[in-house]
Amino acid sequence: MNKSLSFSFIGGDLRQIYAANALSRDGYNVKCLGMDSEHAPDLEKTVAVYKDVDSLINDADIVVLPLPCSTDSETVNAPLVDSPIYIHSVMKKLSPRQLLLVGKPSKSVTAMADLYNAHLIDYAEREELSVLNAVPTAEGAIAVAMQETPYTIHSSKIAVVGYGRIGKILAHDLAALGADVTTFARKYEDFAWSKVNSLRCAHTGDLAEHTGEFDIIFNTVPSRVFDFKAISNMRDDCMIIDLASKPGGVDLETAGKLGKKVIWLLSLPGKVAPKTAGEIIKNTIINILNELGV
Amino acid sequence: MNKSLSFSFIGGDLRQIYAANALSRDGYNVKCLGMDSEHAPDLEKTVAVYKDVDSLINDADIVVLPLPCSTDSETVNAPLVDSPIYIHSVMKKLSPRQLLLVGKPSKSVTAMADLYNAHLIDYAEREELSVLNAVPTAEGAIAVAMQETPYTIHSSKIAVVGYGRIGKILAHDLAALGADVTTFARKYEDFAWSKVNSLRCAHTGDLAEHTGEFDIIFNTVPSRVFDFKAISNMRDDCMIIDLASKPGGVDLETAGKLGKKVIWLLSLPGKVAPKTAGEIIKNTIINILNELGV
Amino acid sequence: MNKSLSFSFIGGDLRQIYAANALSRDGYNVKCLGMDSEHAPDLEKTVAVYKDVDSLINDADIVVLPLPCSTDSETVNAPLVDSPIYIHSVMKKLSPRQLLLVGKPSKSVTAMADLYNAHLIDYAEREELSVLNAVPTAEGAIAVAMQETPYTIHSSKIAVVGYGRIGKILAHDLAALGADVTTFARKYEDFAWSKVNSLRCAHTGDLAEHTGEFDIIFNTVPSRVFDFKAISNMRDDCMIIDLASKPGGVDLETAGKLGKKVIWLLSLPGKVAPKTAGEIIKNTIINILNELGV
Amino acid sequence: MNKSLSFSFIGGDLRQIYAANALSRDGYNVKCLGMDSEHAPDLEKTVAVYKDVDSLINDADIVVLPLPCSTDSETVNAPLVDSPIYIHSVMKKLSPRQLLLVGKPSKSVTAMADLYNAHLIDYAEREELSVLNAVPTAEGAIAVAMQETPYTIHSSKIAVVGYGRIGKILAHDLAALGADVTTFARKYEDFAWSKVNSLRCAHTGDLAEHTGEFDIIFNTVPSRVFDFKAISNMRDDCMIIDLASKPGGVDLETAGKLGKKVIWLLSLPGKVAPKTAGEIIKNTIINILNELGV
Repeated sequence: MNKSLSFSFIGGDLRQIYAANALSRDGYNVKCLGMDSEHAPDLEKTVAVYKDVDSLINDADIVVLPLPCSTDSETVNAPLVDSPIYIHSVMKKLSPRQLLLVGKPSKSVTAMADLYNAHLIDYAEREELSVLNAVPTAEGAIAVAMQETPYTIHSSKIAVVGYGRIGKILAHDLAALGADVTTFARKYEDFAWSKVNSLRCAHTGDLAEHTGEFDIIFNTVPSRVFDFKAISNMRDDCMIIDLASKPGGVDLETAGKLGKKVIWLLSLPGKVAPKTAGEIIKNTIINILNELGV
Repeated sequence: MNKSLSFSFIGGDLRQIYAANALSRDGYNVKCLGMDSEHAPDLEKTVAVYKDVDSLINDADIVVLPLPCSTDSETVNAPLVDSPIYIHSVMKKLSPRQLLLVGKPSKSVTAMADLYNAHLIDYAEREELSVLNAVPTAEGAIAVAMQETPYTIHSSKIAVVGYGRIGKILAHDLAALGADVTTFARKYEDFAWSKVNSLRCAHTGDLAEHTGEFDIIFNTVPSRVFDFKAISNMRDDCMIIDLASKPGGVDLETAGKLGKKVIWLLSLPGKVAPKTAGEIIKNTIINILNELGV
Repeated sequence: MNKSLSFSFIGGDLRQIYAANALSRDGYNVKCLGMDSEHAPDLEKTVAVYKDVDSLINDADIVVLPLPCSTDSETVNAPLVDSPIYIHSVMKKLSPRQLLLVGKPSKSVTAMADLYNAHLIDYAEREELSVLNAVPTAEGAIAVAMQETPYTIHSSKIAVVGYGRIGKILAHDLAALGADVTTFARKYEDFAWSKVNSLRCAHTGDLAEHTGEFDIIFNTVPSRVFDFKAISNMRDDCMIIDLASKPGGVDLETAGKLGKKVIWLLSLPGKVAPKTAGEIIKNTIINILNELGV
Repeated sequence: MNKSLSFSFIGGDLRQIYAANALSRDGYNVKCLGMDSEHAPDLEKTVAVYKDVDSLINDADIVVLPLPCSTDSETVNAPLVDSPIYIHSVMKKLSPRQLLLVGKPSKSVTAMADLYNAHLIDYAEREELSVLNAVPTAEGAIAVAMQETPYTIHSSKIAVVGYGRIGKILAHDLAALGADVTTFARKYEDFAWSKVNSLRCAHTGDLAEHTGEFDIIFNTVPSRVFDFKAISNMRDDCMIIDLASKPGGVDLETAGKLGKKVIWLLSLPGKVAPKTAGEIIKNTIINILNELGV
């Protein structure tokens, strides 16, 4: 790839700092705005810090907004700085030859990009990013389980509900640490992979009948698979660690009433392993540019 | 084994509660003193709580002191209660037909047992207890590494110094989670096992030359293997997690001066997995009694 | 499922015997034709042996042809018996209420089913069958590698070309046995999974430049990825084990001229683990009937 | 180590050829006698082939006899050549400054060395050689199991009797391939390691009651642990693969009468992986010389 490419990062959390640093160490020209903070790891000295959106974007080949790019569809998600950076102020400066890489744009952000004729690409849609992000998610969940239970992962009876990317990696890691893992899935194909991977498998539809067998239950399914029966059948010392995106897999109110412990963990990669997560973003950006032949 | 055996537990932390509960659930007659606390998990209802040493010991077949049994060689280690329980008050009540199971007695505790003609057995000397305790130690260390570093265990370059029980299990777990693990050992036999287990291996004598290659370094060797050179060669973002018993493997003062991060973790099983550790103690006690043909 | 269902098996190799036996042991009514041989494992006594197609089919709910169902599109593939069983003689007896389960029907077999109005289902198209069959394929390939090379799998440098079902399982097994495995793939998603699974990964397009690095190369890609350059770059003591279906991944003539060893293994499940493969067929049939609500 | 050292190999099978080749490639001066055969892999061109013992030994620093060094205590074990090489003819030429490295010398060979004042070292006694040799032994046993059973290792119920070096590595490999493994041992320490390694464990004394549960049984214990009851309780399609040195763990006559399948495999490393086994010998020799400070 062309090492003379110029990247302009705007906003984001520690992940964007690590992504910017990694690109800079690879020899690319990297600038940033809205990412410098005394409370964050240092930016590489080769990353230029800008205060003005116009000059930042002016000579950039690729402009990178964070993951997620915005929480209000108006300003860039920039938790490390105080003053707002308006998305439209970024968009209106872009020329069609510049790429705008963003994470999880809302419909209105996408519409704004159309309006301003910006070449927007959502890097959070990339399969490789989702697969690789499942690793810090799994490790973050395991660290919480290690701390929050009085027993080891090893020898524990553990359920992993859902056998997608996170479910697969989490079940693997838990089994590798010596847990007795049962996965819950719905498709014969998933049952087959689960068996091939030497894991027990049961049908998610039968979950409620089985919850009483486990020491720890990890959920990855983003729908209410834990109903009253499933929760009430849990042993008192069992804990659910819910990794599902909103609305989550567990009715927290019911769990509370029944006195069952539930921990809902969201956005783990940026929290538990921002450096790894930043490097995943950086590599995904490189893959996108490679595919575009930039 | 004879289910009519009667156990009297005195003092200890959460592990002794879990050990007493487990024996009680197995059908044994279990009593205790100095273990009940509102801040601890509940004792099983079948475990009788005593306030008086004499009556507790009176009809016991086996008296169990904690691990370690004492921190001052005078009183029983009983962090869950306030009033002191004197070891000599236990000893003098014992008859020779009663067994006194204790963890890591000091020389003076052993001498006291001789004086009082008590049948003392150190359950902490059992190999199976040490092997099984290495699992919660490894998990506790891994949980800390997951939290204290901004990267995942997966893909990290990790050194494990020492290839004994803890080193073996820790290196296995880390490799199973996808780390690139190098073990440091001194014996050809250990190199062979390390190779068989698909781990890189280097000589502990060459440690200082290699410390710069790692993201995380776990030490299990209880002597100062990390000298000035070894510490100063570490990368700035590398962290040592020291699991070695006193005096530890790292000169903390030197590390502090050089700005390197060291976390010294001691007695992990009781802290991170008291239930598992309590069940290990319980099973070890059962093994001892089985061997004695009680 | 309805245990009164009646299965009629026609033809096939040992796998069909094991599939019929497994269904019979599960309590189903099982009959067969063209599968009894003194050179094969015994059929369960509860499996009725027929000599006449008409009476076999007459009261069957499900008729099962083997995998593949035919090698000439005219007769049923029935290597255990001498006399031919014509597919049309089966088809013409079927009523629309009967299911005809077959493995890999050719176009003309499918057309014949349409003509006779038979309810044909290809069980070899099921994803779970392909996933599960990859296990005996991987084991068969590994057994050959163990025998045909003077070194162990452990510590060998091994390439696995293609990261589909067989590639994934084979690479896992080899790494689990201690090999140093590199997978070759083309998609970023596959690179991500390969990395997550702690395997090296390279691009299949770069294969020729890397073949000189390996002790053993397994191919799973059914197209000529091994060109002259790829083969000639191999070390003299390297071996290719080709698992790709026809036309295979290696130009055998070129390999022969260059003096490189290639072993082409086809249809391993039925050869190395007919019992496992038969049980996979049986379970796949059960899944199909479950989905149909039979 | 001193690369000017000169090695003289005498006799042996393919392992000695690979050991000699490996030392020669490392830059040492290597000569040999009684190892060249048109039926064996080529010796490196840098390995000088001698026909005369006297001149071979004359300027050697280290003389290497094979593993085992002799099968009759009179002649060197040299299956690749026809004419006998007498051990005493080697011994009497040795000066005390020369090292004589031999594998498994009988008492009379050791006595002969004393008589001739030869500095004899048994490299087969080295722990690292035994550990590393367990890998080809395990792989050889697994390859036989893969071939000789109609089911896969994956999902099979497998017993591994004995949890020493071979038992440990074999159980690991089988579990890694997806088998459901139970180890049989006698010591609490072994039970602990077995549990830590996520394997089921039972007491060898209870073996006979459990043999009916397994698809494949591997024995590593060199005493008759398989008595009439243990053998007769096996399922008819179960197979024992016996890896124990003489007298083996199974009464073959009883097994034959009861119609149970037993395969007794001896000396696997040299048979299934002579190159790996030769490199293990070479590395062990290097370790010995390192320890001696040669």
